[in-house]
Amino acid sequence: MTNPTAAMLVIGDEILSGRTREANAYHLAGRLGKAGIDLREIRVIPDDHAVIVDAVRALSAAHTHVFTSGGIGPTHDDITADAVADAFGVGVEVRDDARAALQAAVGPGRTLTDAHLRMARIPHGAALIDNRISGAPGFRIGNVHVMAGVPAIFVAMLDAVLPGLESGLPVVSDELRFEVGEGRIAEPLRDLAAVMPELSIGSYPFHDAGVYGTNIVVRGTDPARVRVAIERLRAIRDADG
Amino acid sequence: MTNPTAAMLVIGDEILSGRTREANAYHLAGRLGKAGIDLREIRVIPDDHAVIVDAVRALSAAHTHVFTSGGIGPTHDDITADAVADAFGVGVEVRDDARAALQAAVGPGRTLTDAHLRMARIPHGAALIDNRISGAPGFRIGNVHVMAGVPAIFVAMLDAVLPGLESGLPVVSDELRFEVGEGRIAEPLRDLAAVMPELSIGSYPFHDAGVYGTNIVVRGTDPARVRVAIERLRAIRDADG
Repeated sequence: MTNPTAAMLVIGDEILSGRTREANAYHLAGRLGKAGIDLREIRVIPDDHAVIVDAVRALSAAHTHVFTSGGIGPTHDDITADAVADAFGVGVEVRDDARAALQAAVGPGRTLTDAHLRMARIPHGAALIDNRISGAPGFRIGNVHVMAGVPAIFVAMLDAVLPGLESGLPVVSDELRFEVGEGRIAEPLRDLAAVMPELSIGSYPFHDAGVYGTNIVVRGTDPARVRVAIERLRAIRDADG
Repeated sequence: MTNPTAAMLVIGDEILSGRTREANAYHLAGRLGKAGIDLREIRVIPDDHAVIVDAVRALSAAHTHVFTSGGIGPTHDDITADAVADAFGVGVEVRDDARAALQAAVGPGRTLTDAHLRMARIPHGAALIDNRISGAPGFRIGNVHVMAGVPAIFVAMLDAVLPGLESGLPVVSDELRFEVGEGRIAEPLRDLAAVMPELSIGSYPFHDAGVYGTNIVVRGTDPARVRVAIERLRAIRDADG
């Protein structure tokens, strides 16, 4: 597959400490697959300025798109905007467009607090990402999309971002359930993978109500080839039965 | 904190494609925190030999311990053992101890298949990790612990591995719920974090049945200091109310 590639960078001590179960990667992975963008890495790192700077630089250089989640709120542990700005060698300032987005969210009569203004600090040259849930915007700088960690807001920001991205051929997938262990079908699977190298053929064992079985998943950008592979797998399964 | 550090490497196309929700990182993070091992990175990568080799080398050099999950079954997409061996510059062979573990699991009278023997291929110099669920062992080479992706087996292998590891002071955590948004408490929080730099103080907004609130989590290796911080937070909360 020669689709554009992507990486996700999850920024948050709460994931690494075991307090919080990461909740955005699965959603992002599904959406990118449908958009024909090949997610190649998910990296979870702590709220540590130098670590964020290094990771943003490495992933931004290696992939077409980078998506970050976490660390853009108003408190002392929200350091993503400053770190991403450093990664691109630019400054950060309270921007009028971000301030206006926050003012619209709190209502026209109310005064913005220091905490609001902290969320209006945007790296120089970045474009805002709309947040229809709570107002505080994300931003895009270079190929890096900086989004919130709160799942409902992450989803809303991704909705705002995805339509404008360079995408590729959607990945189609289909799967077949075998009620035998992986070992029984390893050899024909290997042969099939060898003759259809344009497909990704994965084998996932399961244990379900006393049955040891295997789900075979076929993925590719050509739906006709995926169908051919599934038919061949069905023939293997029926011959084995 | 000067506890030993760790990284987790999740190997699996199925996570990156959005088919499967990653299920082992949360468990590992919780167990490592209790053991006083500081999990500093989680990285999810595809079933790609060169990518696995590079990631194993990078994480092994940077951390006290590395834990991998996935890619040690019998099928063509299970390439972790070969890639980890390459990362350490050693060969892979069917080992007698691994063969014996599989023979014990399938029963003494049965012949091991090629698929079983593939799971007995272990890098030269590695120590086996016991798998009480299905027999097929994991292994440790250098500071890298190679374990299964199937959650029940991952848990069993981690149980086998953790007691022998270099560990540190267990991390204690406590938290306090504020029924106000993050912005209202950002300033006193920042002050508290500044005067107690030995603690990690995290702020996590929530939206629960119409209430916008914030959970403040305090983590550290000295339980007395964590208690002091929680008392100060309670005073901040009561003064605000």
